[in-house]
Amino acid sequence: MEGRDVVVIDQRLLPHRFQLLRLRNHRETAEAIRNMTIRGAGTIGATAGYGMAQAFLEGVSLARAYETLVTTRPTAVDLKHALDRVLLQAHDAPSAVAVAERIADEYVDRMKRIGRIGLSLLPRNARVLTHCNAGWLAIVDWGSATAPIYMAHRKGRRVFVWVDETRPRCQGAKLTSWELLNEGVPHKVIADNAAGHFMRRGEVDLCLVGADRIAINGDTANKLGTYEKAVLARENGIPFYVVAPTSTIDPLCPNGDAIPIEERDEEEVHFVDGVRITPRGARAANPAFDVTPARYITGILTERGLFKPAELKRLWRR
Amino acid sequence: MEGRDVVVIDQRLLPHRFQLLRLRNHRETAEAIRNMTIRGAGTIGATAGYGMAQAFLEGVSLARAYETLVTTRPTAVDLKHALDRVLLQAHDAPSAVAVAERIADEYVDRMKRIGRIGLSLLPRNARVLTHCNAGWLAIVDWGSATAPIYMAHRKGRRVFVWVDETRPRCQGAKLTSWELLNEGVPHKVIADNAAGHFMRRGEVDLCLVGADRIAINGDTANKLGTYEKAVLARENGIPFYVVAPTSTIDPLCPNGDAIPIEERDEEEVHFVDGVRITPRGARAANPAFDVTPARYITGILTERGLFKPAELKRLWRR
Repeated sequence: MEGRDVVVIDQRLLPHRFQLLRLRNHRETAEAIRNMTIRGAGTIGATAGYGMAQAFLEGVSLARAYETLVTTRPTAVDLKHALDRVLLQAHDAPSAVAVAERIADEYVDRMKRIGRIGLSLLPRNARVLTHCNAGWLAIVDWGSATAPIYMAHRKGRRVFVWVDETRPRCQGAKLTSWELLNEGVPHKVIADNAAGHFMRRGEVDLCLVGADRIAINGDTANKLGTYEKAVLARENGIPFYVVAPTSTIDPLCPNGDAIPIEERDEEEVHFVDGVRITPRGARAANPAFDVTPARYITGILTERGLFKPAELKRLWRR
Repeated sequence: MEGRDVVVIDQRLLPHRFQLLRLRNHRETAEAIRNMTIRGAGTIGATAGYGMAQAFLEGVSLARAYETLVTTRPTAVDLKHALDRVLLQAHDAPSAVAVAERIADEYVDRMKRIGRIGLSLLPRNARVLTHCNAGWLAIVDWGSATAPIYMAHRKGRRVFVWVDETRPRCQGAKLTSWELLNEGVPHKVIADNAAGHFMRRGEVDLCLVGADRIAINGDTANKLGTYEKAVLARENGIPFYVVAPTSTIDPLCPNGDAIPIEERDEEEVHFVDGVRITPRGARAANPAFDVTPARYITGILTERGLFKPAELKRLWRR
């Protein structure tokens, strides 16, 4: 935050252009979340927290600002967590900004801890498959799925990443690949269709993916295609880990069926960066997320440790 | 064939432009197969047959022409079948053209028969998922996977198709969708990542896909991503059928491990219709096909009937 503005990387322009965007009020911040200028569970949470702080600074109706911000993306639960925290813990504008700062800082701490814990999951010369972008563009500074990878790489350990391009918005090809290039981590981008092929050939040691919402029974909503990779991983005996801060766990959500799945505009399927790939008149369907049932998930890696999906219930009842 | 020219639809321009291309000699025909001006198991076979006939007409070395044509695409076995037939059955240029014509005509007859047999696989209001293009662009006049769909549609039965876009070359989004629009068959294009999601939700009744080579144990090479869909179909209790003429069965190929998998240029992953989606400097891997082990395949639908994968051995020993 700079003054009253939230300054973000415009992720829609990556990987070809790096540009900061200044969001001048909570409405602009809400729109940036909705139109995916910024995206990724933790970055949505951090940005939403700042958006709520902006509402305090603007002196507008907090209830209406909350409503504006919370309806931008239905699936990600970090969004609501951040808004609730600012609303409940702040009593004036300066304290709202302080709470928002704390939320962002906590992501950094948590992701760093996740990175350290996750190190033990990586075998020597690990070949990791990841889906979408669960990197530092998605969760401040370290990312979730990428945190163990970055940690290992900085310690000089060899790690290679298969990057699912992640259609339709290509966050893997555009964002994860760009991050990994910046960090110097060896990787190859593949069509989403290729993940199973490389798993079957024994060229994937483990899968690390992020999450947008984890139900209390361990069912996990994440970017469309995660479910496919999880089924293929189990079929090929490959460990499949969901990596997320505990803020992504939704204790009020009993299971995956209760997670709302965002339907996005079908134009995202018809066009790739303005180029139409389908014939005029064709229709498309474009769910943004899918649900991976807990039984396909080897473990959920959080800043509090690595858990089996079934353990969440016990933990969050304490 | 018109005179000495092979006239083909330039499939690289679809769905936005329909243009015929005139291939003036066997070298141009080989290049059109290699650069995917034409593609699809049966269309490759038919075109290769004409290419071999052109070599007869040109009076060039048949051995060298055979070599030029057979090395264009390593995975599709219809290619070699067609070349072998023209070479073995023709004794001069006119008979070579006649054999090539017969090969193309046989595809039409076989596909029509496949369509009739396949009708019984479609329940009322069938919702079919298909991958890549196994339509009439891929196998002359009817297509393989699409033949039962077109047959049902012409009989006035309701059928809906989920069309995997099929990255990286998007043959589903570009070709299958264009065909289905032309035929008036209701369908929706989806990201390859969405297939599992719709299967899990109970919105897919059966899968119909084509094949590029079927080993004698039933293992099937088809467009990259077919293996993923087959695993997901079995996981969700959805029948998964491979649809192909018997010319796609390779009795000399014992199993999937013996099928050569074509590696194509990584630029196909980096660029979509000339637009770069990955950052400069990123690497990609681009296998064109994958192998679906026989155990995931419910049945193989040919012009001779519907077989279980394990039945092929018995049949082709006769």
